[in-house]
Order: sequence, then structure tokens, then C-alpha cells
Amino acid sequence: MQVTFTAAVAGASGYAGGEVLRLLLGHPEIEVGAVTAHSNVGQRLGEAHPHLLPLADRVFEPTDAATLAGHDVVVLALPHGRSGEIAAALAAAGSDALVLDCGADHRLADAGDWERFYGTAHAGTWPYGLPELILADQGARQRDRLRGARRVAVPGCNVTAVTLALQPGVATGLVDPADVVAVLAVGYSGAGKAAKTHLLAAEALGSLAPYAVGGTHRHVPEIEQNLRAAGAGSVRLSFTPVLAPVSRGILATVTAPLTAGISPATVRAAWEQYYADEPFVHLLPEGTWPTTAMVTGANTALVQVAVDERAGRVVALCAIDNLVKGTAGAAVQSMNLALGLPETAGLCTVGVAP
Amino acid sequence: MQVTFTAAVAGASGYAGGEVLRLLLGHPEIEVGAVTAHSNVGQRLGEAHPHLLPLADRVFEPTDAATLAGHDVVVLALPHGRSGEIAAALAAAGSDALVLDCGADHRLADAGDWERFYGTAHAGTWPYGLPELILADQGARQRDRLRGARRVAVPGCNVTAVTLALQPGVATGLVDPADVVAVLAVGYSGAGKAAKTHLLAAEALGSLAPYAVGGTHRHVPEIEQNLRAAGAGSVRLSFTPVLAPVSRGILATVTAPLTAGISPATVRAAWEQYYADEPFVHLLPEGTWPTTAMVTGANTALVQVAVDERAGRVVALCAIDNLVKGTAGAAVQSMNLALGLPETAGLCTVGVAP
Amino acid sequence: MQVTFTAAVAGASGYAGGEVLRLLLGHPEIEVGAVTAHSNVGQRLGEAHPHLLPLADRVFEPTDAATLAGHDVVVLALPHGRSGEIAAALAAAGSDALVLDCGADHRLADAGDWERFYGTAHAGTWPYGLPELILADQGARQRDRLRGARRVAVPGCNVTAVTLALQPGVATGLVDPADVVAVLAVGYSGAGKAAKTHLLAAEALGSLAPYAVGGTHRHVPEIEQNLRAAGAGSVRLSFTPVLAPVSRGILATVTAPLTAGISPATVRAAWEQYYADEPFVHLLPEGTWPTTAMVTGANTALVQVAVDERAGRVVALCAIDNLVKGTAGAAVQSMNLALGLPETAGLCTVGVAP
Amino acid sequence: MQVTFTAAVAGASGYAGGEVLRLLLGHPEIEVGAVTAHSNVGQRLGEAHPHLLPLADRVFEPTDAATLAGHDVVVLALPHGRSGEIAAALAAAGSDALVLDCGADHRLADAGDWERFYGTAHAGTWPYGLPELILADQGARQRDRLRGARRVAVPGCNVTAVTLALQPGVATGLVDPADVVAVLAVGYSGAGKAAKTHLLAAEALGSLAPYAVGGTHRHVPEIEQNLRAAGAGSVRLSFTPVLAPVSRGILATVTAPLTAGISPATVRAAWEQYYADEPFVHLLPEGTWPTTAMVTGANTALVQVAVDERAGRVVALCAIDNLVKGTAGAAVQSMNLALGLPETAGLCTVGVAP
Repeated sequence: MQVTFTAAVAGASGYAGGEVLRLLLGHPEIEVGAVTAHSNVGQRLGEAHPHLLPLADRVFEPTDAATLAGHDVVVLALPHGRSGEIAAALAAAGSDALVLDCGADHRLADAGDWERFYGTAHAGTWPYGLPELILADQGARQRDRLRGARRVAVPGCNVTAVTLALQPGVATGLVDPADVVAVLAVGYSGAGKAAKTHLLAAEALGSLAPYAVGGTHRHVPEIEQNLRAAGAGSVRLSFTPVLAPVSRGILATVTAPLTAGISPATVRAAWEQYYADEPFVHLLPEGTWPTTAMVTGANTALVQVAVDERAGRVVALCAIDNLVKGTAGAAVQSMNLALGLPETAGLCTVGVAP
Repeated sequence: MQVTFTAAVAGASGYAGGEVLRLLLGHPEIEVGAVTAHSNVGQRLGEAHPHLLPLADRVFEPTDAATLAGHDVVVLALPHGRSGEIAAALAAAGSDALVLDCGADHRLADAGDWERFYGTAHAGTWPYGLPELILADQGARQRDRLRGARRVAVPGCNVTAVTLALQPGVATGLVDPADVVAVLAVGYSGAGKAAKTHLLAAEALGSLAPYAVGGTHRHVPEIEQNLRAAGAGSVRLSFTPVLAPVSRGILATVTAPLTAGISPATVRAAWEQYYADEPFVHLLPEGTWPTTAMVTGANTALVQVAVDERAGRVVALCAIDNLVKGTAGAAVQSMNLALGLPETAGLCTVGVAP
Repeated sequence: MQVTFTAAVAGASGYAGGEVLRLLLGHPEIEVGAVTAHSNVGQRLGEAHPHLLPLADRVFEPTDAATLAGHDVVVLALPHGRSGEIAAALAAAGSDALVLDCGADHRLADAGDWERFYGTAHAGTWPYGLPELILADQGARQRDRLRGARRVAVPGCNVTAVTLALQPGVATGLVDPADVVAVLAVGYSGAGKAAKTHLLAAEALGSLAPYAVGGTHRHVPEIEQNLRAAGAGSVRLSFTPVLAPVSRGILATVTAPLTAGISPATVRAAWEQYYADEPFVHLLPEGTWPTTAMVTGANTALVQVAVDERAGRVVALCAIDNLVKGTAGAAVQSMNLALGLPETAGLCTVGVAP
Repeated sequence: MQVTFTAAVAGASGYAGGEVLRLLLGHPEIEVGAVTAHSNVGQRLGEAHPHLLPLADRVFEPTDAATLAGHDVVVLALPHGRSGEIAAALAAAGSDALVLDCGADHRLADAGDWERFYGTAHAGTWPYGLPELILADQGARQRDRLRGARRVAVPGCNVTAVTLALQPGVATGLVDPADVVAVLAVGYSGAGKAAKTHLLAAEALGSLAPYAVGGTHRHVPEIEQNLRAAGAGSVRLSFTPVLAPVSRGILATVTAPLTAGISPATVRAAWEQYYADEPFVHLLPEGTWPTTAMVTGANTALVQVAVDERAGRVVALCAIDNLVKGTAGAAVQSMNLALGLPETAGLCTVGVAP
């Protein structure tokens, strides 16, 4: 195989980093270069990710500019707050690598929002890695801004699910973005690989467990930002995630008031129009509801929309694999755009179901 | 043990009937009498419910008035549409048994609502078996109406979760019932024991699956009825259930607009006031979120409430075991009230966790 | 309620300690006294065990003799190696409490076995808390040795499952104990509440994961000891546990060669004979296989036995809830015997299924 | 894409058929032709397999020779007993298609074994689709017999797991095949898509459930046949499957007596020697145990072997995805060999984990 680009993965011992590697192993134009970690430096990769057989004997190197420079692509899968520094160090080291940040550091345009929700200094804003995001004021999608980009901020997984569910309604003015309610059933891999008691299998099995209730989740301002990009004036969002015993998957139920006088057919047509040509966002036939099993391991977002006339609300649903379309697949899709490769290279649309 | 009452269970081969039997086996004042079924007549009970060891050698009898008459209590766990007829036959047969209907037939007061959502003729209305329901116009709770009752309509499981989550806010006018959004993560036992492909374990495992999207779920008018009882003028409710891979459990996330100028402390005080003396509804300490594992097998409803000031909404959560507080436990609790027994007899508050 | 005894629980913040408390809350003759912990001292019990509502406001005290003395019963749910010391301190402090050790320290009679498998000095041997254990040389069961005991070593959970599955065949000489193979599917609560990466829900969900392969599991010598008690001359045991995504439950599949010329009816009769009068061990009807769901939360061991004539082996199965009959229920059952209470007090036989 | 072959899938509405389609969609040399079913004829494929987006609008045709003829490859995923007839009809219709049978009909060479375990007339024997099977008497592997084959009998899923776990020990005489014990933890997709009560999610969740205990499972004679092929004189096998709440996966624990005087190093060397060059069978590093999550969606069999010197047994473990290496992947791998394509075409080795 004649590959064209080399890619390093920083923070490769965690779930996001492992998933980036899984996808890159199947990418026809990428060769996996350095894999770096923090507390696992010196360990065989096979110990952290026994499923990544072709990389089992790789050894985690330290996460520093010297190790990462010299690659065409650097994917950062680091804890929040680390990526600005390493990107700067890479630039200082003369690297012109494409840098994709799976962390949150460079997603928010508003420094105040960042500081309010993350409590640290804002690191700046990079092009946002959600190619399907509607840019209402430009009659365009975000993918145009990703072509040739050298820095990409990969979206938050919950953000992607809520945005893709609702944005056609916002862009067309069919729903009122000032009263959005989103409740997400989410899997445990989204909480990361750090060992914490409430993430133990014994706690999770047989349990449904909400967290970050009351608007405190860090994905709230990012969703609002996206909906504003899609055309909302002001946005108000109630957001509640509920952990359910699956490893992967987000099922977002998003509702917003239906604009008076709009018919269900008009609503459906809006969603169809915006997603008809998207390779990874698929509006299901009427009456079929998306499930997360359908998208396990795939970069697909399955969307459905219904009108509840009694309640006067649109109900929009989106199912994604949080580690693929929610993180690593979004990184690869954005990377493809940035490198001028086919947007779908190395990504599949068919989930591993049942 | 000197028991006082005998109880028959009709529809005893299903999940609801089995759970009623599980609870009655531990009830100090009840002796289990006839167990009846439909297609399983003649089968050993142990084949349908191998966990009910003390009843393993009982044999399912036919569901008819002759079999059920002669008991002090008859619990109906039949498919919707069957209980009116059997109750009439019991009366005709001279039985004065207390009849508790775990089905939907006698829950709704509005015949139009019944016909719209169930598509059959309305069977009438029985006293509603949710003792904690706030009756705003009487300054009372529903339990007063259950003392000495001879007929009880056991509430729908999702209804109980949503009602208990939100009703203090409605009763006090702290939230606006005209814009309620409820999303429920629910387990598979709520879908019953009939074998259907979409309920197979292979389909459920690893999947999050919404259904009845867009306001079509039959529990919608029942929730609205309860919220009106609790003091709402008009109610508008968006309701979406999402199946998650647990056998038991409902985690309801219910949001409604906060009335302007109300503080979080006022909100919390309202919930505290209404639930302080309830034996089975427990408001958790601030910052602790209810999970379904905490209530597995118990008749407890765990409630929490938070204010999202950014979104201007109250978020109320409720976790119940759909087969206990959601069905069989509600039947037993109502039975206790109807028979003049201690309300908590035969019911536990401590779930089997983890 | 006029209770007779007070009980303290040491190590009450873990899963075993929590389950002891759950059972004691339902015990008619016990009042829960001190609850002690190590790193959680000073924390509300409700933070560690939110399901134990009646004890939510208790505070963890330090695990020392001063705190534990003054109770009639002390249940130790401590890490291995801690219970000998605390028992001695209790005695030194003048306490004559009944002490039940849920840890392994006092289970093994052979100091060499202890040192080989646990790597520390042997703490001594206490009366073994498996009332149903067959004592072949005395024509008796172990329960006789537990009546009036002041020290009890609660068995290992896997040990109980394997012993109860196979011992009738050993006691009657119908199987050859020199070639026993046991493979156990086990739930995650058995691995404890300490946060470890391989116990995370994201790792467990969708996975079947063996561990301690090749005879290294510490329960091996304890099983061998029990089978020798039941009449085996020499015992050889291959033992493999496989973690499966359930919180609770052990399903033990135990096979051993069938003695030549023995009929299936003779085999079944042996199991029937030994378990006919046991309150907590139940031989299922022929052709019904035990499952762990049937015993969730109950102190029941469900047993089945089949003869594989082609393979020349008996296959014995046992399902238990590892936290109940496998740990806390065994402690309570032994406590009842030691205190002269009915053996079944505070224990139920009906699992929470489905 | 210039594909070379067309493939029809019969019985495409079930899990095996759906998985064959999933793999064929990613195969560079195959174009999916007709998809046939029985009771689902006329239905959109998307209703049965919503995850197979590229085929969603295909319609199930009837399963007959007219529909299947005209393809280069026909994969049969039919209930047992149906494939002999359809293969004969295909031949009669002049089709020279390569036919791969995912059913059991043509696996067993011994008609008596077939009749004993399946109860119908033996349909004959086709080349056996386990390329890695050791053929002891020829110093070869089964793949040599699959090159250019026109008929292939795809192995049973449990059979593949047990055979791959143990055969190196049998082939080298390091273990005694006359006393093999295999216990398998298995997922629910292996039980198929027909709706049956005991396969409901509510039954499966939280439960560990054995079945076909006592040597009655139909995979027993097929395993014995394979071990004889690998060099065993006589084989005796105790085989017990235990359902666990995962959708996919088989974790086989297989033990057999170690030949006297053999060291662990010799054992390991035997497994290494046989699997060093296999593309889909991977012996893990010492001390790493295979789990099913590692192989979800992949055609990989992960193997490990340990020696239990105290018990005198070898413990061999194998993890596979029952729908991939256990069924559809085995079909594709055999198809590749039969068609002269690279054996690994269209198959991946990296599972979707966590």
C-alpha cells in the first residue's frame, strides 16, 4: 500500500486515542507513526488496547513536540487544557503538521463561555470539525472551512448528536431555538478510561444514571454556538445526559417548539433537504427510529424527526457512536477534508449490529 | 402466620402478574389463592416464573369469575381491554372482592382521551392507585380516596415516574405545566413478556432505542390528567421513552419552565414539603442524582430537582422500578389502603444494589 | 419491633458490607449499630450506598475495637489480612461479640495452602459458614458446628457455588473428585468496589473476560477442602472464572467423571436426598436449568444435575447471587445459627426477576 | 470499483444473513446481488437490517433457484435442513455458483452422528470451511481443500471456538482428547432472530443462563470430528454453553489433561508453531487473556493457553465474534479461498472495542 501521509496520535492510551488508531489502521492513505501517552510511557500498546493487534508491539512514547514533529498529521486525544501548549510547541519546533484536537480547548469562540464552563484561560479557537454544520449566514456548510485547514477542533460527542438532530429546523426557522430541551442516553466510553467508582461495571449494570443535571455540562455552550451558526438568534437549551449500560452510543432526544402553522410534511422536507447529500448523516424513513446499535463502529449519524401536534413540538432524534462520529471519526473526516482526500476515506457507514 | 386476606392474581404468567406474586409472598397479611392465565392454563407456575419457588407447583387456572370469586382480593394483570368484563362478571357472581386493575382500562376519566389513545370503548373510571398524587383542589392526596375503595386502577409505570417528578412544582405554581418535556430511559420488562423481535436480547444489548415518538404513547393523557389534578390549568406534554438495556427501571427526566423570579431554594422547599412524610417517595440530598439501581425490587421513588437558570427550566428526575412502584408495588400499596392495613405492609424501600 | 441483638459492620463502605447492611435492615431480630470504614471515615453512608435509605445519614466511623465492641454481633467485610487483628483486639477489649468474617483469613485449615495462595502468615481457622456443607465422616452437615459458634469464616462466593453444585456426588461416591473441572460465569460486583480500569463499565459491556486462568485463583484450595470434607479422598480441580456483564450472579458449571455403571436416576436421587430439606438449596425439576436472575437478591442456591453419558461425566450447575448466598446472606444465615435464631430469619428465597 | 464476482444471500433477513451482507458490502471484489427470505419476502431490507444503509431499499425476494442462479456466489443462511435442497435445485438450474452453507446440513461426515443429533436424513458432506483446521494425517491445514472448492460447509460458531482453542495440543499429542471439557460463555445473537420468550432482553439482562446441558448440543459431534482430524484417536467431550448478556461473542474455556512430563514452555511452543502464520488466529502474549470485546466485528480468533500443574490440565481459551469468525467471516474467508482471492480480502482483524 502506497500511503501518502504519516500520523501521530498523542494520548493514544485512552479510548479516544485508541479509536483514532483503529480508524487510521483502516485508512488507505495514512501510516500510523508515533503513539504517545503520559503515565503509560514505555508500555506496549497491546496492554492498553489489546484489540489493536497490528500495533500491539508499539511502545508508548512521551507526549512532546520532539516525538510528534515530523509527522504530516498529529491527532491530540489529551485531557482538556493540554492541546494548546503542545500545538504551540509543535509550531515552535518547525512542524507544519495538520493538528486535530479531540479535546475541548479550541472549540468555543467565546472566551467568556470557555471560562465559565471550563474555569481556565481560553486557548483560542480553531476551525470546527463538524463538516455538516449549517452556516446559515453563508448558505454553506462547515466543510468548506475545513478544506486545507491546518488546525481542527473536533466537536464534543454530545454536541454533534444534538446539533445534527435539530439544526435543519433551526436553519429553516421551523422551530424556536429559545426553548430547546435535549435529553441524551449515553454510553460509558464517553466518560473515558480513568478508573472511577461510579463508572465501574457493577455500578452501571442494571442502572440508568443521570449526571451534570441543571445546565452544568460543558457541552451546553458548544451546542448553543452551533445552533447560532445554523441561524438561531438567541438559544436557550436544557441539556441532561443519562448514562445507560452500553459501552458506545448516544441517543439524543431533542425537542423544540414548532413554529405556528407548519405542517409535518414541511418539517420532514427541511430535514431531507439538508441531509440528502450528506455521506454520513442519514434521515431514516418515516416511522423508523434510530438506535445506537445501528451505528456501532460507524461514522454514521442516524436522524429522525417527528411532529407532536398535541404538544406543539418537533421531536428530533439522533443516534451516533460517541467514539466514531462523536470523536475519532469526526477527526478522520475532518482530516480527509484538510488533506484534500475524499471525505469518506477510511470511514464506514455500516454499524456492527446486532 | 395468621393471614387475614386471600388474593387471586389474574394474568399471573406475565411480568406484572409475577411481580404481584413476588410481593404478595412477602406480605404478612395475604395468602396467595388462585393464579390464572390464558394460553398457559394447566402449566406449572414454575415454568413461567422459576424464581417464585414457593409457588412453583401451582397450576395456572383459567381467568374466569368462577375461579376468581371467593377471594378477598383480585389483582388483574391482563392485557388492556379485559378487566372491565371480568370485574363485571365477578360482581355478577356475587363476589365483593377488592379488585385492583394493573391494566389501563379504568385509569382515564375522560372517555374521549381513552378512545383517542386506546381505540376502544371506555370502560369507566376507578379510584386511581397513586396514593401520593396531589389533589390540589382538596388540599389532599389521593390516598384518602383509596381507603376503603373496592376498585383501584393502578397507574401506568411511566405515568408514575413523571407525575412524582414534577407534581410539587405544578401544585405550587412554580413551573409552567403548559410546556412540559419528559424523556424517559426505560427497561425492557415494561414491554411485557410477549416474544417480539425488537425485544430480543440480541437487539437490545448495546442499543439505545426510542419508540412511540411524537406524542403517541398511551401514557400521555394519563400524565396530563395527573398534572391537572395536581393543580395545572392546561397541560402540554412532550413525552419520549427510550429503551435501554436494563430489565427493570425508569429514569424520568422532566423539565418545565420555571416561573419568573423563583429561587432554587424555593423550588427545593416545595419538593421537600410535599414529600417529607411520604413513605415511598424520597427527595435525595442536593447534588445526588437518582439511579434506577438504587430502587431495583423496591417500592421507592427517588426524586431530585434542579434549577437550570441559564435555560430557565426546572429539571425534575425520578427513578422507579417499573415493576414495583410502577406496577405491582403500587397495587399492593393501594390494596393496603383499601383493606385498612398499614400502607407499607409487605413493601420494602431498599433496592437491590449494586 | 423488639429486636434482640445489635450488630456492627466493619468495612461497611464496600459491596459486601453494603449487602450485609441491606439484609440486616430486613432482619427482625437485629438492630444495626456502628458502621465503620477506612478511607471513607466521616462520610455519610448515603454517599457510598444511596440505596440504603434508612441508614443514609449514618456516618462511617473508624474500624477499631473501641467502635466495634459493645455490639452483640460484628460482621467484618474487610480486605484479606485484616480480620485476625481486629478479632484479637475485640477479644482484648473484653468484647464477647459473635464475629463473622466475610474475608478469607480464617477459611483454610491448611496453613500451607494459605501461604501458597495468599502469601502471608496464616491467621488460624474459624468454623466455616456453609451450613449445607456435607461432613461425610460425621454423617452431618456443617450447620451443627455453627450453632452457638462465636467465630465464623464466611465462605468464598465461587467456593459456595462449586461446592453446592457437586458435593452430593462426592459424598455418595458417584463422581470422581480427582478430575473436577469448574468454569464459572461471574458478575462484576464480586470484584469489589475499588476502581480499576479493567472493571470499568466501558470494558465490561459487550465483553466476556476470563481471569486467574490456570489454577491460580485463591478459591481453589478452599473448594478442595470442602470436597474433602464431603468425602473426597484426593481432589484435583481445574477452575476458571469468566467475567460477564452482570452486576450480581455466579453460574457454576462443574463436571466430574461419573462412576462406572451409575444411572442418571441414581445421580438425581443423590442430589435430591441431600437437598430435600435444605431451606436455601433447591434442586430444580429435571430439564430446568438454573439462571442467576432467578436468585438476584435472594439467599437461594439453585442446583441442577445432568448426566452426559457420551462424555461419561456428571454436569452439575449452581446459580447464586454472589453478594447474598455467596457472601452477606451466608453471613446472616450463619449468624442466625450461632445466635440460636431460626436459620432463615431475615433471608428471602425469591429472587428479583426478571 | 471494478468488482469481479456477484453474490446472492439466501436467508438474508436473519442475523447470519445480515452479517454476511455487512461483510460483503466491505469486500472489494464482490457485488451484492439478490437477497432472499421466506416470511419477509417483499419487505424492504432496511426494515430487517436498518444498519445496512447501502442496501436499505433492496427488497427480499423468494428463496428459490430462479432467484439465486446467475450469481457467482450463493451464501445460504437458512434454517437447518434447507440447504441441500436449494443446492440441488441450483445445480439442476444449470448454476455453477460457489455455494457456501452457513447452516449445519453438510458439516458432518458421519451420517449416524447427523441423524443422532439432528433427527433428519443426512444431506451429505461438503468441504469444511475452517481454513485453520489442522489435518494431522496430511501435515496440512484445511485451507488447501478449500482452494477452488465449489461447495463449502461453514462451521458452527461454538465449534470454531473450541477447535481453535485446543487443536494444537491435540495435533502434538500434548493433551489427552479423551477427557476434554469445554464451557462456553456465549452471546444472544447466536440463538438467532426468531422471537422466543427466553431470548427476550428482559430475561437476558442480569442473567447467566446455561442450556443444552449434558452433551445434547448439536455442535458436540462436529467438535469431535475436528479434533479427530487434528490427530485425536478417540475423543470424549463435555460441552456446556452458558448464555450471557452480550449480543455477540463466544469465550470458550477448554481444558484437557496434560500429557505427563510436558513443560508449560513446550505447550506454549506448540500453540505458537501452529498459529504463527495464521492471519486470523492470534496467540496472545503470556498472561493476557482473550476477551470477546477485542474481536467484536472482526474475523479474529484470539487464543491463549495455560498449564495448571496442580490440576494436571491444559486450559485453552478462545474468543471469537460468533457472527464473524463464527459464521459470516468464516464464509467470506472460505469464499476467498474458493475464488482464488487473497484469503483476507474484505475481512478485518481489529475489533470494535471498547
